[in-house]
Amino acid sequence: MSRELSFNLFEMNTVGHISQGLWRHPGNTRERYTDIEFWQSEAKLLEAGLFDTVFLADVLGAYDGYRDGPDTAIREAVQIPNNDPMLVIPVMAAVTSHLGFVATFSTTYEPPFAFARRASTLDHLTKGRFGWNIVTSYLPNAARNFGLEDELSHEERYLRAHEYLEVLYKLWEGSWEDGAVVRDRSGGVYTDPARVHRIDHEGTYFRVAGPHLSEPSPQRTPVLFQAGSSPTGRAFAGKHAEVVFVGGASLPDFAASIEDIHREAEGFGRAPGSVRTLGSAVLIAGKTRADAERKAEEFERLSSAEGYLAYAGGGSGIDLARYPKDALMSDVIASVATTKDASTMSRYAPGATVGDALREVTRFDRGPFFALGTGEQIADAIEGWVAETGIDGFNLRQFVTPGTIEDFVEYVVPELQKRGLYRTSYAEGTLRERTFDAGAATLPGDHPGAAYRRR
Amino acid sequence: MSRELSFNLFEMNTVGHISQGLWRHPGNTRERYTDIEFWQSEAKLLEAGLFDTVFLADVLGAYDGYRDGPDTAIREAVQIPNNDPMLVIPVMAAVTSHLGFVATFSTTYEPPFAFARRASTLDHLTKGRFGWNIVTSYLPNAARNFGLEDELSHEERYLRAHEYLEVLYKLWEGSWEDGAVVRDRSGGVYTDPARVHRIDHEGTYFRVAGPHLSEPSPQRTPVLFQAGSSPTGRAFAGKHAEVVFVGGASLPDFAASIEDIHREAEGFGRAPGSVRTLGSAVLIAGKTRADAERKAEEFERLSSAEGYLAYAGGGSGIDLARYPKDALMSDVIASVATTKDASTMSRYAPGATVGDALREVTRFDRGPFFALGTGEQIADAIEGWVAETGIDGFNLRQFVTPGTIEDFVEYVVPELQKRGLYRTSYAEGTLRERTFDAGAATLPGDHPGAAYRRR
Repeated sequence: MSRELSFNLFEMNTVGHISQGLWRHPGNTRERYTDIEFWQSEAKLLEAGLFDTVFLADVLGAYDGYRDGPDTAIREAVQIPNNDPMLVIPVMAAVTSHLGFVATFSTTYEPPFAFARRASTLDHLTKGRFGWNIVTSYLPNAARNFGLEDELSHEERYLRAHEYLEVLYKLWEGSWEDGAVVRDRSGGVYTDPARVHRIDHEGTYFRVAGPHLSEPSPQRTPVLFQAGSSPTGRAFAGKHAEVVFVGGASLPDFAASIEDIHREAEGFGRAPGSVRTLGSAVLIAGKTRADAERKAEEFERLSSAEGYLAYAGGGSGIDLARYPKDALMSDVIASVATTKDASTMSRYAPGATVGDALREVTRFDRGPFFALGTGEQIADAIEGWVAETGIDGFNLRQFVTPGTIEDFVEYVVPELQKRGLYRTSYAEGTLRERTFDAGAATLPGDHPGAAYRRR
Repeated sequence: MSRELSFNLFEMNTVGHISQGLWRHPGNTRERYTDIEFWQSEAKLLEAGLFDTVFLADVLGAYDGYRDGPDTAIREAVQIPNNDPMLVIPVMAAVTSHLGFVATFSTTYEPPFAFARRASTLDHLTKGRFGWNIVTSYLPNAARNFGLEDELSHEERYLRAHEYLEVLYKLWEGSWEDGAVVRDRSGGVYTDPARVHRIDHEGTYFRVAGPHLSEPSPQRTPVLFQAGSSPTGRAFAGKHAEVVFVGGASLPDFAASIEDIHREAEGFGRAPGSVRTLGSAVLIAGKTRADAERKAEEFERLSSAEGYLAYAGGGSGIDLARYPKDALMSDVIASVATTKDASTMSRYAPGATVGDALREVTRFDRGPFFALGTGEQIADAIEGWVAETGIDGFNLRQFVTPGTIEDFVEYVVPELQKRGLYRTSYAEGTLRERTFDAGAATLPGDHPGAAYRRR
C-alpha cells in the first residue's frame, strides 16, 4: 500500500456542522450553503488541493436532547437548518473530474429500492466518484419524523442495515449482468433482457422484486464508508465497509481500533488491506506558529458552549443541563449507557465532574489528532500519528469557509508532498481505484457484495 | 392573463421516454442520459429557446404488462434503464438562470419528510425554479419494488396523496415563519427558535413530528403540477394543482376537460385563473413542409410497435398480445376498466378491433395536438387549438435528441413570437411568478396549502 495518505473534507449541507458558533466569524460564508456557487467553488478548491473526497454528513432530525427541546440547536444553527446532501453532489461533479463525493444516508428510514437508484444515478453522473457513508441514524427526533415513537434499538437498526445492504447488493451487483446493455441499433436491441434479472428479495424487513432500474454504473456499488464504534458496528464495518471512520481518545486507542477493524475484516474472509481507516483531524495551520495560535484563539473565542452542549446532547442522549455540576461524569454516562452509545462522552478522566465537562465542551484540542502551527510542524505531527496508529488518512474539520481548506492546501500539503505522504497529481479512474492500490472499479471478489454477482 | 403560451419539454432521465424505437435513429444521443454534459447542453438550449420548464417524467418500476414480463420493455429501452429525475436538476440549474425544472415524484412509496427536504433543497439550489409533478404511480412492478403485493387501489392512493400534501404543506408553509432566520452574528442567533415549529402531524397514513429541517426556500411549496383524468384525480387537481396536464381525444374533449378543471378549482374556493392547463403536443417542424414530412416518415419508420405495446401494456394494464385480433377494443377496455384507468386506450372508434389497435400503435398523429410543417403552419395550428380549447400551453414530445428542440426553436418560436404567443425574454422571478401574471413567489392565499401558514 502506498504511503500517500487520504485527506477528505468533513462537510455537511448546513451552516453549523461540528464547529459550533463559528458561523459568527466575520469571514465565514456558511449561510451560502443554499447556493450552487458555494459548492462549486469549494469543489474546485478541493480538487486543486488534490483532496480525495468531500465527505458529507447528514442528520434527519433536530438535536432536541438538551434543555428539553430543539431551541438551542435552532438558535445556534447546530445542523439545522440543513438540506439534502445528495443533491449538491451533481453540481460539484460538474466542475471537477477527480474529486470523490461521499454522502451519508441512513438505512433506517427510507426504502432501499429508491436509494439504490439514487446512488446509481450519482455514480453515473460522477463517472464513478461516489461513495456512501452508511449510517443507521441516532436522533430520536429523526425517528419521530418517519412515523416511529422512538428510535429502533441499536441491535434492530443493525439487523435492518445488514438486510438493507443485501437488497442493494442484489440490485447493484446481481440484477444487470456485465454487457447486458448492447445498444444494437440495427438489431433493435438496447438491452439484452436475458441478462437483466429480477431480485425477488423476501426478507424480514424488505420485499423487493426488481429488476434494478439503473443500468450498471462505473463502480456498481459505491465505495462503502462506515463509522461504527460499538461491537455491533465494528462487526458491520468488518463485513461491509471499505473505508472506516475510526474514533478514540488517544493514539493507542486508535491503534487498537484500527488493528481490530483489520482483524474483523479478515475474519470475514477479506484480504489484508481491504479496509482503509480514517480519523477526524483538527489542524490549524498558519504561516507562522503565532499566526496559527492567533487563529486558534479566535476560533475558541467564537465557539459556542451552548451549541456544543446541544450537539452533544443529541449525539449522546445526555442532557448536561439536567445534572448537578458536581455529579461525576462516570455516573452520568453509566446512567444512559444502556440505551445510547456514550462514546462521544467517553474521553473524560476518572473523577471528572459535570462542571469539568461543561468547561471543556468548547475545547477542540481534546482528540489525539490535533495539531497547530506551521505546515512543517503539522506535517511532523501527522507523520507521528500515522507511525503510531497505522491510520490511512483523515477527515478534516472545518472552522471557517473559506479559510480552513485554503490554509491546509497552502501550508500543509506542500510539506506532506515533500515527504511522499500526499499525492502530487490524481491517478485516473474511479474513487475505488484511487482508494485501493490494486483496486478495480467494482467491489473486490472477496467482498460480501460480490457474492451476488451472476457469472 | 397573458396570451403568451407555456412551452415545456417533456423529458425523462432515460433512453426511451415516449417515442419508442427512436433511440435507433443515427443522430439520437439518448444513451448519453447518464452524463452531466447531456443535461447541461439540453438546459442551455432550452433556456436559449425561452422554454418555461423541462418537465421530467418518472416511473418506479418496469413495464411488465405485455407478453407476461418486462423483456420487451428492456429490449426496446421503454423507460428502462432509467435514473433518478431529481439529481439532474442541480446540474441544469448550474448553467441556467431562468429555466424551470419540474420533477415527477410519487406520493405512494416514499416518506413525506424526506421528500419535503429534497424539494426544499432543489428550490433553494434553483433559486425558486422548482416544480413538482404529483403522481400516485401506476405500475404493478413499482408496488412490488416497495414491499407491496400489488398496487394500492386508486381510491386509497388518492386518500394517501391528500394526506401526503397535508404533511408537506405543514412542513413547507407552517414550520418556519417568515423572518425566522435572522443570522444575527453579534447576538449569536442564527434562527429565532420561537418562530420554528414542530408540526406534530398524526393522520391515517403518516405521523411526522418536525420541525422541517430546511429553512424556507424562495417558493416554499414548489409549483404543483398534476395530471389526473379520473373523477378522483380531477378533484385532487382542482384542490391542489397549479398547473394541470390535461388529456383528451379531440379538441372538444380538451375544451370540456379544461372547463371542468377550472370549475373544480373554483369549487374549492380558488380564484378564476388559479390553474393553468397543459396538453401534450407532437410538433414536427421543418424548413419546408417536405422537410417536415421527410422527418415524420423517418420517425415512423424507426418507431417500434413492440415498444409501444409494452408501454401501453404497462400504462393501461391491457396486454394486447393476449387477445384475438378480431376482438372489439371496447370489450377489451371494459374487461379491465374496473381496476385501471383505461384512458390511454380510450381513443378508439366504436367497432375498432385489437387488430386495428395493433396497426395504429406506432401512429403519433392520433391526438388533436399534432402538427407537421413549416413554422408558420405549426403556429397556425397552435393558434387554432388555443382558440378552440382555452389551453395555456404544451409539453413537447421529443423524437430525437438533439433535433426536436432545435427544430422547434428555429422554426416555430419566431412565428409564435410574431403573433405575441411566445415570450421574447424571460421575466425575472421564481417559476411561480412567471407562471401566473400576478403571482407571488409563494402559494396564493386561496390555495389550500396557504391555510397552514402561521400569522
